[in-house]
Amino acid sequence: MELAEHSLAVVGAKFEIHAIGRVHSSLTDLESAPRQADEGAPEAWLVFEPEVNEALRNLRPGDDVIVITWLDRACRDALSVHPRGDVSRPQEGVFSTRSPHRPNPIGLHRVKIEDVDGLRVRVDHLEALDGTPILDLKPTLDEDVRKR
Amino acid sequence: MELAEHSLAVVGAKFEIHAIGRVHSSLTDLESAPRQADEGAPEAWLVFEPEVNEALRNLRPGDDVIVITWLDRACRDALSVHPRGDVSRPQEGVFSTRSPHRPNPIGLHRVKIEDVDGLRVRVDHLEALDGTPILDLKPTLDEDVRKR
Repeated sequence: MELAEHSLAVVGAKFEIHAIGRVHSSLTDLESAPRQADEGAPEAWLVFEPEVNEALRNLRPGDDVIVITWLDRACRDALSVHPRGDVSRPQEGVFSTRSPHRPNPIGLHRVKIEDVDGLRVRVDHLEALDGTPILDLKPTLDEDVRKR
Repeated sequence: MELAEHSLAVVGAKFEIHAIGRVHSSLTDLESAPRQADEGAPEAWLVFEPEVNEALRNLRPGDDVIVITWLDRACRDALSVHPRGDVSRPQEGVFSTRSPHRPNPIGLHRVKIEDVDGLRVRVDHLEALDGTPILDLKPTLDEDVRKR
């Protein structure tokens, strides 16, 4: 599968999103990146644009947050994938998988903040590649951690 | 606070996202919408574009999923807000709140699928307004439900 960004020949209304920062990570290689954060992802820095400084001001070490990223190396025209890239498994619709390859390649990453240094926020583990654009940061809610 | 969409006079790279569907809900009024799903949000239908039909094919009633929406009535130049709109509380940076008003107004909604009918998926409770664009749907992971 080609990994350059494709435009989806589809769809309804379009909206513009902005990178508010970037991931700085030792993960630079798509092939060696873990598929999920609990599979050996390293700690990483979130480095924000100066324009969003005010939005960061209440973040503290110990906070559990959801980092929302733009998976800019994903394939946007994938609608089915082999789960976890395992071709021995039947293809599934991408909305039942966490594959990065999907119409809007938005990544969700639950992390704990370890350090805040101005525009730089260190988090405990992140499976996103170095340079991945950051779109948003939200605190977790009890709703997010409701047990199945 | 004005609720029309503003463009942020800011930021790094820009990307284009597409509505892959819309929320159909009895919630039509911003003022009466609950702030979180556990505060009385009604069930809702997610109505998808025909072009993403294949991506839906493994969704089943009982699945716990995260709906990612575009909060198209939010104010994008908000960097601080009074938590829960309560002006008696001091303003906080938006990245420490779940306010819809933020540079990229992306909504995360954890829901349970109750019914799947072709391109229409009914979910148990959703605090998004009628007509809200849908960007993505992902299964929850154990990682999402890790207890604090």
